[in-house]
Amino acid sequence: MSDVFCKIIAGDIPSAKIYEDDEVLAILDISQTTHGHALVMPKAHYGSMLECPEELLGKVMNVAKKLGNAAKKALGADGVNILANCGESAGQTVPHFHVHVIPRYEGKEDGLVLEFKPQDTSAIDFKALAAKLAEGLD
Amino acid sequence: MSDVFCKIIAGDIPSAKIYEDDEVLAILDISQTTHGHALVMPKAHYGSMLECPEELLGKVMNVAKKLGNAAKKALGADGVNILANCGESAGQTVPHFHVHVIPRYEGKEDGLVLEFKPQDTSAIDFKALAAKLAEGLD
Repeated sequence: MSDVFCKIIAGDIPSAKIYEDDEVLAILDISQTTHGHALVMPKAHYGSMLECPEELLGKVMNVAKKLGNAAKKALGADGVNILANCGESAGQTVPHFHVHVIPRYEGKEDGLVLEFKPQDTSAIDFKALAAKLAEGLD
Repeated sequence: MSDVFCKIIAGDIPSAKIYEDDEVLAILDISQTTHGHALVMPKAHYGSMLECPEELLGKVMNVAKKLGNAAKKALGADGVNILANCGESAGQTVPHFHVHVIPRYEGKEDGLVLEFKPQDTSAIDFKALAAKLAEGLD
């Protein structure tokens, strides 16, 4: 594959590396939506989290968790959003699985807009919808 | 602990269960920000992802991944946002670690507002910031 993260992993494009091991890389996001905004990704190419093998996904997420704690310890963040966008309709822009680690600072304006708008749920049959999703797990 | 998710896990509050094993529970989010919006959580109480032990975090995230694929297969979603809000400043409202699995549907308006606004990064020393975060990993 030749997406920008594959090129960064191969060393063909420079990046600000935070953490690296045989399987996982963590770098600063060049957009810095908030101070210390980082990305964690597997070195092997998977299109999104939805395709990532089980063991590797656990490793990637644990690096993301550690980075979230590092942002609190080293940068004074008091919250963190840990986010994987899977697919273009979910806002994924680079088709190589990556997790955003987005530090948040109480009372400080930043570049992340995240809002859950209330929906009308009166027509939803929750038990039937849960059962439908459960069938999809098979 | 007596947060609402602990009560759901204990069976004291009803929920629309999608998946359950000894350590992990997945239910529909009552807000249904998008069609099929689900939550995955460990049954043991941890305040956020940042406190969750390594092995358990891997298990929770793999259930979230499977649910994302189930939303594509069973509901026709073409994208999924997988999101953990850690801390009040990150929008966490229930202090029990949970992962949002938010199916997305191309061209369909829904209740999730997610935007990364461009920031002025001209004054940022990326190498120094990456090094500072790396120190926080220790």
